[in-house]
Amino acid sequence: MPITVFFAAGPANWAEYRAPLNAAFAEAGLDVAMSDSAPDPAAVDYIVFAPGGIIEDFGPFMNCKAVLNLWAGVERLVTNPTLTQPLARMVDWGLTEGMVEYVVGHVLRHHLGMDAHFHGQDGVWRNSVLPPLARERPVAMLGLGELGQAAGRALTALNFPVMGWSRSAKDIGGIDCHSGEDGLAHVLTRAEIVVLLLPLTDGTRNILNAERLALLPKGAVIINPGRGPLIDDTALLSPLDAGQIGHATLDVFRTEPLPPDHPYWAHPNVTVTPHIAADTRPSSSSQVIAENIRRGEAGEPFLHLVDRSRGY
Amino acid sequence: MPITVFFAAGPANWAEYRAPLNAAFAEAGLDVAMSDSAPDPAAVDYIVFAPGGIIEDFGPFMNCKAVLNLWAGVERLVTNPTLTQPLARMVDWGLTEGMVEYVVGHVLRHHLGMDAHFHGQDGVWRNSVLPPLARERPVAMLGLGELGQAAGRALTALNFPVMGWSRSAKDIGGIDCHSGEDGLAHVLTRAEIVVLLLPLTDGTRNILNAERLALLPKGAVIINPGRGPLIDDTALLSPLDAGQIGHATLDVFRTEPLPPDHPYWAHPNVTVTPHIAADTRPSSSSQVIAENIRRGEAGEPFLHLVDRSRGY
Repeated sequence: MPITVFFAAGPANWAEYRAPLNAAFAEAGLDVAMSDSAPDPAAVDYIVFAPGGIIEDFGPFMNCKAVLNLWAGVERLVTNPTLTQPLARMVDWGLTEGMVEYVVGHVLRHHLGMDAHFHGQDGVWRNSVLPPLARERPVAMLGLGELGQAAGRALTALNFPVMGWSRSAKDIGGIDCHSGEDGLAHVLTRAEIVVLLLPLTDGTRNILNAERLALLPKGAVIINPGRGPLIDDTALLSPLDAGQIGHATLDVFRTEPLPPDHPYWAHPNVTVTPHIAADTRPSSSSQVIAENIRRGEAGEPFLHLVDRSRGY
Repeated sequence: MPITVFFAAGPANWAEYRAPLNAAFAEAGLDVAMSDSAPDPAAVDYIVFAPGGIIEDFGPFMNCKAVLNLWAGVERLVTNPTLTQPLARMVDWGLTEGMVEYVVGHVLRHHLGMDAHFHGQDGVWRNSVLPPLARERPVAMLGLGELGQAAGRALTALNFPVMGWSRSAKDIGGIDCHSGEDGLAHVLTRAEIVVLLLPLTDGTRNILNAERLALLPKGAVIINPGRGPLIDDTALLSPLDAGQIGHATLDVFRTEPLPPDHPYWAHPNVTVTPHIAADTRPSSSSQVIAENIRRGEAGEPFLHLVDRSRGY
């Protein structure tokens, strides 16, 4: 008897996830019959779920061994009283890896001064300025959660001196950690490249405002793959015009897609990337789901189970 | 009696290296008299050399204990029949770090598809194509010497699957090593990004010729921070025009500076960088030279000796 999986995450996700999930099941040695409709709820062994999916009442799925959420956030699911089955959220190693690659790539782009070469393919051999080594280029990592720590570690492996900042004090090997308002000023006055990987809260909204941007050394570069509202957009444009900020590479915005007439698009010292720094990856997240089904079938504990009393 | 060092690397290098070398000698506890002219060749204990320096005939330096090259490349020196003294090439940790930064930066630039964003700041939100993760992007490292190993390790740390190739078989943890003609074909048929860090020898000149370029998967990217003549320039242009090769980022050329009318400058899928991938750093390389002189005086084996039969 194959394992019955009900894909209840909507038609767009079905188109994107059907093949990677079936590939991950096969790779895990699982005999799975997966469908995006459930003729007999009582026959369903596992539900793959995303908000906007087609289940409101989980009650009829009386033999379901686990609900496996396709995304990290479960805030809307945990309040559903009909959901009594074990609930696992997505912790996608592919998302973390993608973010680390984006951060390291864009830090190195600015560190190496690549743009001068992209824009200087004019036959002039400009080799007079030797860039400093990474060990001479201080980088600030604002935010030291899962993503900030992973990106910070990858930068220290390339010899960048990484200063970290978080609201509450942390101690992370290899990263010079700071916290609080004084700590933020300490970090910003020394950072030639600033990476924003903070969560968006009342305390971090507009954290890069005019006053704090003015602390940065002249020509500093800002990379924001975190959350759009971490930056006061109006306050950023003036130091960019003046060259006080050398460049801003921005992946997230208050309004997405970023409107075509937004000044960021036209600014010569801004690079807009279209919210691509980190996305849940069908291939890696399908493997996470297959691993949880394998565990369920083997009687092993599920990964990333949600504690319903804490809500995450 | 002070140790007599003849700095035979030209006046521009003398201006740049005199102070860092004397500082490194002092730090190593060596009593050195260094000059950029050699009144009595027989009195010279060590020669610091660079191509374009002022020695053609090494014969009169009959008491010279070693020729210490200021750069990594020794291809023009090893064919000089008058050079019978031990020859050490430069293995400069500052150069190695700079090279690793260049290679990782340009690999990530192509891996992340950064160019589409540099050239697409036109208000159009293009987020439909999610790039693969680094672990899904096979990279070939041709050349597994000091620089190739260091760059290969940095790429594996970012999860890139790295296939290495060298003339003689090597075994390096984390790198899938190959050698010989069959090994080269194996690596090239699978590599989406190829990095050239081979020494220039009769066996590696034009190693990327038309036949071998045709082995690469469609759209593969070539990064050459090694030596210009490793690539058959004429053979590269045609697959670049056809899109068989997606991009070439080239830092070294047969003629430098690359002439303004060379087709590489104008090609939309070529990035020319002006021999900046790795430059010897005066501070770190002076420490390497001082260490070799200390070893010579202490009767210890020299570091980084060139095997004249292999040519590197």
